Amino acid sequence: MATFGDIGLAAVINIITALIFLLVFAFLRLQPINDRVYFPKWYIKGLRKSPTASGAFVRKFVNLDYRSYLKLLNWVPDALKMSQSELIEHAGLDSAVYMRIYLLGLKIFVPIFFITWAVLIPVNWTNNTLKLSKETYSEIDKLSISNIPHGLWAHVAVAYVVTIWTCFMLKKEYETVANMRFYFLQSEKLRPDQFTVLVKNIPPDAHESVSDIVQNFFLANHHNNYLTHQIVCNANKLAKLVKKRQKKQNWLDYYQIKHSKHPSKRPLMRTGFWGLWGKKVDGIEHHETEIEKLTNEIAKERKNVLNDPKAILPAAFVSFKTRWGAAVCAQTQQVRNPTSWLTERAPEPRDVYWKNLAIPYVSLTIRKVIMGVAFFFLTFFYMIPIAFVQSLANIEGIEKVVPFLKPIINVKLIKSFIQGFLPGIVLKIFLMMLPKLLMRISKFEGFISISKLERRSASRYYLFKFVNVFLGSIIAGAAFEQLHAFLNQPANKIPETIGIAIPMKATFFITYIMVDGWSGTAGEILRLKRLIIYHLKNIFLVKTERDRQRAMSPGSIGFNTGEPQIQFYYLIGLVYAVVTPLLIPFILVFFALAFVVYRHQIINVYNQKYESRAAFWPDVHGRVITALIISHVLLMGLLSTKHAVASTPVLLALPILTIGFHIYCKGRFEPAFTRYPLQEAMNKDTLDLVSEPRPNLKGYLQNAYIRPVFKDGGSDDHYNDRTMIVPTKRQSSRNTPEPSKTSGDSVASLHEIIDESISHEY
Amino acid sequence: MATFGDIGLAAVINIITALIFLLVFAFLRLQPINDRVYFPKWYIKGLRKSPTASGAFVRKFVNLDYRSYLKLLNWVPDALKMSQSELIEHAGLDSAVYMRIYLLGLKIFVPIFFITWAVLIPVNWTNNTLKLSKETYSEIDKLSISNIPHGLWAHVAVAYVVTIWTCFMLKKEYETVANMRFYFLQSEKLRPDQFTVLVKNIPPDAHESVSDIVQNFFLANHHNNYLTHQIVCNANKLAKLVKKRQKKQNWLDYYQIKHSKHPSKRPLMRTGFWGLWGKKVDGIEHHETEIEKLTNEIAKERKNVLNDPKAILPAAFVSFKTRWGAAVCAQTQQVRNPTSWLTERAPEPRDVYWKNLAIPYVSLTIRKVIMGVAFFFLTFFYMIPIAFVQSLANIEGIEKVVPFLKPIINVKLIKSFIQGFLPGIVLKIFLMMLPKLLMRISKFEGFISISKLERRSASRYYLFKFVNVFLGSIIAGAAFEQLHAFLNQPANKIPETIGIAIPMKATFFITYIMVDGWSGTAGEILRLKRLIIYHLKNIFLVKTERDRQRAMSPGSIGFNTGEPQIQFYYLIGLVYAVVTPLLIPFILVFFALAFVVYRHQIINVYNQKYESRAAFWPDVHGRVITALIISHVLLMGLLSTKHAVASTPVLLALPILTIGFHIYCKGRFEPAFTRYPLQEAMNKDTLDLVSEPRPNLKGYLQNAYIRPVFKDGGSDDHYNDRTMIVPTKRQSSRNTPEPSKTSGDSVASLHEIIDESISHEY
Repeated sequence: MATFGDIGLAAVINIITALIFLLVFAFLRLQPINDRVYFPKWYIKGLRKSPTASGAFVRKFVNLDYRSYLKLLNWVPDALKMSQSELIEHAGLDSAVYMRIYLLGLKIFVPIFFITWAVLIPVNWTNNTLKLSKETYSEIDKLSISNIPHGLWAHVAVAYVVTIWTCFMLKKEYETVANMRFYFLQSEKLRPDQFTVLVKNIPPDAHESVSDIVQNFFLANHHNNYLTHQIVCNANKLAKLVKKRQKKQNWLDYYQIKHSKHPSKRPLMRTGFWGLWGKKVDGIEHHETEIEKLTNEIAKERKNVLNDPKAILPAAFVSFKTRWGAAVCAQTQQVRNPTSWLTERAPEPRDVYWKNLAIPYVSLTIRKVIMGVAFFFLTFFYMIPIAFVQSLANIEGIEKVVPFLKPIINVKLIKSFIQGFLPGIVLKIFLMMLPKLLMRISKFEGFISISKLERRSASRYYLFKFVNVFLGSIIAGAAFEQLHAFLNQPANKIPETIGIAIPMKATFFITYIMVDGWSGTAGEILRLKRLIIYHLKNIFLVKTERDRQRAMSPGSIGFNTGEPQIQFYYLIGLVYAVVTPLLIPFILVFFALAFVVYRHQIINVYNQKYESRAAFWPDVHGRVITALIISHVLLMGLLSTKHAVASTPVLLALPILTIGFHIYCKGRFEPAFTRYPLQEAMNKDTLDLVSEPRPNLKGYLQNAYIRPVFKDGGSDDHYNDRTMIVPTKRQSSRNTPEPSKTSGDSVASLHEIIDESISHEY
Repeated sequence: MATFGDIGLAAVINIITALIFLLVFAFLRLQPINDRVYFPKWYIKGLRKSPTASGAFVRKFVNLDYRSYLKLLNWVPDALKMSQSELIEHAGLDSAVYMRIYLLGLKIFVPIFFITWAVLIPVNWTNNTLKLSKETYSEIDKLSISNIPHGLWAHVAVAYVVTIWTCFMLKKEYETVANMRFYFLQSEKLRPDQFTVLVKNIPPDAHESVSDIVQNFFLANHHNNYLTHQIVCNANKLAKLVKKRQKKQNWLDYYQIKHSKHPSKRPLMRTGFWGLWGKKVDGIEHHETEIEKLTNEIAKERKNVLNDPKAILPAAFVSFKTRWGAAVCAQTQQVRNPTSWLTERAPEPRDVYWKNLAIPYVSLTIRKVIMGVAFFFLTFFYMIPIAFVQSLANIEGIEKVVPFLKPIINVKLIKSFIQGFLPGIVLKIFLMMLPKLLMRISKFEGFISISKLERRSASRYYLFKFVNVFLGSIIAGAAFEQLHAFLNQPANKIPETIGIAIPMKATFFITYIMVDGWSGTAGEILRLKRLIIYHLKNIFLVKTERDRQRAMSPGSIGFNTGEPQIQFYYLIGLVYAVVTPLLIPFILVFFALAFVVYRHQIINVYNQKYESRAAFWPDVHGRVITALIISHVLLMGLLSTKHAVASTPVLLALPILTIGFHIYCKGRFEPAFTRYPLQEAMNKDTLDLVSEPRPNLKGYLQNAYIRPVFKDGGSDDHYNDRTMIVPTKRQSSRNTPEPSKTSGDSVASLHEIIDESISHEY
């Protein structure tokens, strides 16, 4: 049992760590040499240029202006200064709404902090249960519900207040976000996805081409609205070849630079696995021939795809004359068979995950089932391989496997390192692989937009964290053991088992918040990994301004990992609000710190890959509701052990009311995130007609959804955003989030090898 | 434990009962005097006239033609002769599809009968577990799974075969019914509901009337398609007054007839409760003044409703120029707020339950929650009042309450009657009230069409039967006791508890099938109650041909009671298919008998109140799936007690696969019953344009959805079907299912008092 002293020590250590991170960041960001690491967003938007032009040579790298150091912490007000509407304009709706998740945390937990500290802490403190019992206890337990002899009505009342307040804030937030989304949609410029519907599972016809089938069908059934369509080809092989060529090109660039630095020596390489063995050849020549071979293959494959009717998928992007027409088509059933001619709103062109369009519709269900089962096993048996590897990674294990290392291992320092850190590092590595694994599962399931893939991965990551981190920490047993125990226990005993353990784990979670939430968040702003890589690249690879631009790798929010992390704090906060109110301020510090840090990152660093228009909010809302219900069930379990049987029916109303509230919210707000109301579409159509001359819509939409590999040889990852710009006066160059990339001649494409090997997004 | 002898005796008794019913029916139906009781459908369709015109006086009442008695059982081939397409033409799609539920039963259980008897009966018989044990057992148990020492793979294999066969038939049937529905929709004549959408929750506006709001909204957002609309008034008070006047009118008629039979005596009546006490007045004069008063009130109320803007509800029936326009509007979201401007396909005018249109949208959710809770208590605590009344209804109870009856009660015959029958009668009365109660619950929930009300009631009735009859019989304990036991048992013990009890209750269910299924079905065709009432009416009340027409009261299928009954046989059959295959032939007899009987009734008797175009099939399908899954769970429970642990995981796949199958069917076929695909709508629109000159659609639709009380003073129950006829050459008078009824002058309206007091539909 931890004492106040223990907690205090941990807090001091973590605060110091966090402060060091923040101070180092504050110092580093002032150095011009790091400017592109800490402010890449501004470079991408073209609002900031390299500070090469002016001043002395040293000034290019080091900030010598002492005055700027006086304003060391100015980045905090800077991050907060930008208004929300400016933020939307600057970084997009997704980012702005993402910040509201942190803000919502503050809005929910600040009042909870006051009420729980005002009511529960005194009530807990003035009881004496623990003193009377003979068990060991600490001061922290004295402030928790453990110190209460029987379930007290104060706790039940506070549980009600917490739930009502949370629901109230959730509803307000859902409403706000839905309105922000509508406002954003209404003020958006002309975009192809407003007019376009993705049609899947078009039934084949032996006598007609897919293109003709689509055209005839929509001319017949949407004759007033149909404008044009684009068929989708299965160009996965082509994309693979293009990617392969790009990799070879990167290596070629690398050897060319190497050669240019030492012109006397031809760079040699081995052809075998990872360049470790095999025949030695000249790197430049080898890659040049390889690239030539691939270029020929690509040209052949491209011809194949375009001419082979089998490569044409039974899917199409159908565009309409009006947004109204597209909205109608997306929301209605087209034919008798509800599994053919499936329509849905098209994702943004850059949001499309092209590879999955080729998955046949029939296999989607099977894939879903397989992945559901796979995820189940992943969640409940993930700990088994970890435990296995950990058991290998102890000293005896290593000695057995590699006996010749024995003398080294027995050095005391190395020994203690292996004993102390290796198991932890193994766990960390396995957990770091998880988001990638989950993303792969989502991809295999066949979702066709990147935003959907990330949302799905986030749901699964949350579930995994709940089972393995939350329940795992509380019951301290592997997930599959829990599963077994649960199946063999009466249904009403399960919450009890967990409920009893909850107050005892408060100190663990407080430490968790400080390490993961405080230091981790402070570490995020430092971007240490990116900083090092950038400088390495800068020294060894960058030749032109454009190369430098590419070396920045701003990254993005990473919804699939970031959001479940925030949700985990909601879960801990809501569960402990009534049980151990002492934990709440630690959560508050996390939310406040993370809000500032991520606002700074969004403004200055991250560059979103797509704009889903806050489509993730229903997920966010749903997970907070889940956390609420979990907290109710566990509280019931806990109180039922306190012989407070009377309180159970009173508490039972809470989850029921919460579920009712969720159903209400789902009906009231969720459609805003899935459907485009006809009135909105019609209004926007009318506005368009009135305010400006109609552009050539057909020409604009004709090529909006062409897979990037077909144009200018770019790979799928880099959607050329220029295609989305329609020549109207409203359009400004600021809407181009990323400069177009063409493969081939650029030396800087080696960045990609490095990026790929270190990126943890997916 | 019942022996073969017991079962045989019960079978003989029930077969004789059923045969007597059928023979009496066969005899009675040949008497011309009963013609209108056994063939009302033909009279309603105008294809049969009273046999008054020709022949001797006696022949009008009694059939003297001996030859016709030779063909006593001719009704059976007659009932089977009519083809399905003729049946649809004759009785509508609902009735034709309803017959397929029985047919599906035969299709599923005949092969199951063969496989189970070929495989399981020999396997069970050749084992000796029961002989070795010391418990008492009967021959029937020897044929059941009880006689098997351990779970045998034969049973598991048969469970798989049964499930796969059932799913296969279900899928085929779902497909057939969906196609029948589409075919029916495509071949239907012009009907107002094809063009009309019911719009609910129109947001109010202080400056505009509802009518203007609706018109402006649809002109703006559906300007190509909008045709006209009809607002809905809250005329519930008016309807109540009209109904009241009709009742008074009926009484007036009664007294007038009485007076005309005894012209010397003025008919006297009492004004008090039920005419039992109060002042004596002249019946004719009293009712005449009352009716006059009501007529004035009605005129005033009618004026009120039409002029008062507050009486106009925020709902409207909006009609479109094309079916395509209506289909689009019904399937899309109109405005930002998904709870306003709610659109759905309008029900048929005669299917509308007008009273519920006035329920404010906000209260609907609350009503649903309240009724959900109410139904929960109804299900689990229904037995409490019954047990209470039963405890009063024993001899000691009666003696206590009414001591002066003591001498009568102690007569032996009466005593044994009270002891033997009274508790059973109490139970029966309570159970007979149930469908009415469930219908009331559904009405309170606020569904706006009669078909939906009946479907909802059917779901709940099935659930009730499952808990109280099925589980109640097996575990032999009141439902609330089960509930308590389940909550305190581990989750995996529940199926075991029930599973063990299942084989022991086989004889009970066999008896149940014979009494309820065989004799009950045979009793249905006799229509004894209706026969007696018809003749009473005929003797005392009928004056004109039209009065006689109204005395027929053909009734309808009664989906809310009939379908759950069939489903109960599916449940028993599927549960016992593997456990006690002996039960299957009893089920088969039921399905075959019921198929013939109800086909006869549908052809000759029932007159459907509405046509929902088989909208109930998803419910039917879903409940068979439920029965399948219940059978799997119980079989798992049963086998787990046989120490056949290995079989559990193999069986576990069954419910999972079944649920998967259900999800597949739901996605594949259910939309056919809820949405009107745009292609279908467009095809029908095009056909219309080509095949015949377009009628004046606006004029036709303008008044299609006017509440009956507003036209010709009819009450809501009798929708004047003539309004639905559009003057095209295709229309024939045969589509008028019921003659128009106007209140007032007809003597026969007294029928309604009688009908109302005896009707058990709702």
